[in-house]
Amino acid sequence: MMGDTVESYGALKSLPKRVKIVEVGPRDGLQAEKTQVSTQVKVELVNRLSSAGFENIEVTSFVSPKWVPQMGDAADVMASINRRDRVIYSVLTPNLRGLEGAIEGRADEVVIFGAASEAFSQRNINCSIAESVSRFVPVAKAAKEAGLRLRGSISCCFGCPYQGEVSVASVLDIIARFAELGCDEIDIADTIGVGTAGQVSDVVRAASGVFPIERLSGHFHDTYGQALPNILAALQEGISIFHSSVAGLGGCPYARGATGNVATEDVLYMLNGLGIETGIDLNQVIAAGDFISQQINKANGSRAGRALLARTEAIGCSN
Amino acid sequence: MMGDTVESYGALKSLPKRVKIVEVGPRDGLQAEKTQVSTQVKVELVNRLSSAGFENIEVTSFVSPKWVPQMGDAADVMASINRRDRVIYSVLTPNLRGLEGAIEGRADEVVIFGAASEAFSQRNINCSIAESVSRFVPVAKAAKEAGLRLRGSISCCFGCPYQGEVSVASVLDIIARFAELGCDEIDIADTIGVGTAGQVSDVVRAASGVFPIERLSGHFHDTYGQALPNILAALQEGISIFHSSVAGLGGCPYARGATGNVATEDVLYMLNGLGIETGIDLNQVIAAGDFISQQINKANGSRAGRALLARTEAIGCSN
Repeated sequence: MMGDTVESYGALKSLPKRVKIVEVGPRDGLQAEKTQVSTQVKVELVNRLSSAGFENIEVTSFVSPKWVPQMGDAADVMASINRRDRVIYSVLTPNLRGLEGAIEGRADEVVIFGAASEAFSQRNINCSIAESVSRFVPVAKAAKEAGLRLRGSISCCFGCPYQGEVSVASVLDIIARFAELGCDEIDIADTIGVGTAGQVSDVVRAASGVFPIERLSGHFHDTYGQALPNILAALQEGISIFHSSVAGLGGCPYARGATGNVATEDVLYMLNGLGIETGIDLNQVIAAGDFISQQINKANGSRAGRALLARTEAIGCSN
Repeated sequence: MMGDTVESYGALKSLPKRVKIVEVGPRDGLQAEKTQVSTQVKVELVNRLSSAGFENIEVTSFVSPKWVPQMGDAADVMASINRRDRVIYSVLTPNLRGLEGAIEGRADEVVIFGAASEAFSQRNINCSIAESVSRFVPVAKAAKEAGLRLRGSISCCFGCPYQGEVSVASVLDIIARFAELGCDEIDIADTIGVGTAGQVSDVVRAASGVFPIERLSGHFHDTYGQALPNILAALQEGISIFHSSVAGLGGCPYARGATGNVATEDVLYMLNGLGIETGIDLNQVIAAGDFISQQINKANGSRAGRALLARTEAIGCSN
């Protein structure tokens, strides 16, 4: 071992020694599932995840229930979870009203968001990228004043369902705008999962020129099966924060039946194999993934989860 | 572009400029599916795959139908496919009788096999690794005399369902034995999909010390979701031959309901993104995967396949 990297394997460049996984299943995942779950189930899921060792969980969104009914119980969820000191509980805050909810709910971090694609910004939130960022100025200011961590999440950094290609320059532009708002962490997200490993290397390398690599995170989707090779490429560039969703919760809203968020279990399996520390117990995550998959009556979206659950069952049968 | 490698992306080391995909769906894939298909369907699948541009297809196995009923029509399949000159049609030959069938069926390549795990060899074919290789001596000799290409396939190079860990030394040992038999190509297979990227780098790097890297191939399973990052790691070591299965045909026999062979569509999507040539038309592969998935009445096992089929349907609906 040398400093902050694990020993390199063959041609793999030195990888980060430790990675922070931001578990986004309770918010990003459940919001995209068609089966709604009760507040109690959400609370149990968050508690299971914090028990498993995650240091950052995206819990809910303080958004109007008119727009996102699945997150209408944000205040109840935040009031009911078992708090653990070392865990950063994050919530989405689209506006000042949402920020008030986040403060009342004792969130540790608030998330603001934007797109690297002009077409996506227009279609998704009906304004330009520049306008969307400027709308967050008072939210960011108030969050900082309240002593909260601020995260900026950028969608469509590798492609857009409306305009197709997205330039690296436009990714760098919104990173710079979010940096100016005081973001502590900035997510580079592949919202529709179209990116591949070489593109990830290029975008991440460029991004690290405008924002510290230690505070950049990778949010990859498995729609085309590319999330893990993309994470491997990002690790090789030095990224050490990744988003994932337990049991692969959350489909792809742009292709019915397709996969969305990368499954946390699959990411952990890879990181464990690479000897990278996360502080997370894979078996507890697999149990949490099994729990929520049964609650929403959906096949477990994690390959590692399915394989390990099947192996456990097989061992159980033979004994 | 420089020589045989594409330009490197960021920290990704120079990758091979061209990759050969060995499509194993018709044999390795269908053999592991519980739904059997007719000879006619197998023939159509092989023809669709050769039309799509594959230069190497594993078609069938000349094995006793008592042991593998799914491959009982090997002679008929080989007699009925449309031959394309540039395609290598491979068949498995467990013994001299199988080799005779392969010669009569005008196969271009025969495949012999063994394991890097002593426990797997004993449980799977009831003899030691050394014994299994020596049994192939007359098959290899006769194949060479008949002017056929010879491939040696090594299972359990990254882990074993019975003994757990498999040493790199035991992988190198059977590679050396297969090399001595005159193998033109040798497969390093992760039969149960447990390997991760760093381990792949280490094993491939060691293997390239005892057999030319240009003739080593990687056969990865997606049981734990690791196939694509493992392929990316192997590419970085210089491997330029990979096995994959259209629509992810073939489950994992050691974990019910779990994934087996990596889906060809997902591999191609990554390679296309990396600018690596394969000569294969992804859209035709997706159509072939859709065809065979419908024939066996099973959800398409390729994420890229599902996403692109859904996108096509969506575009179809909106027009």
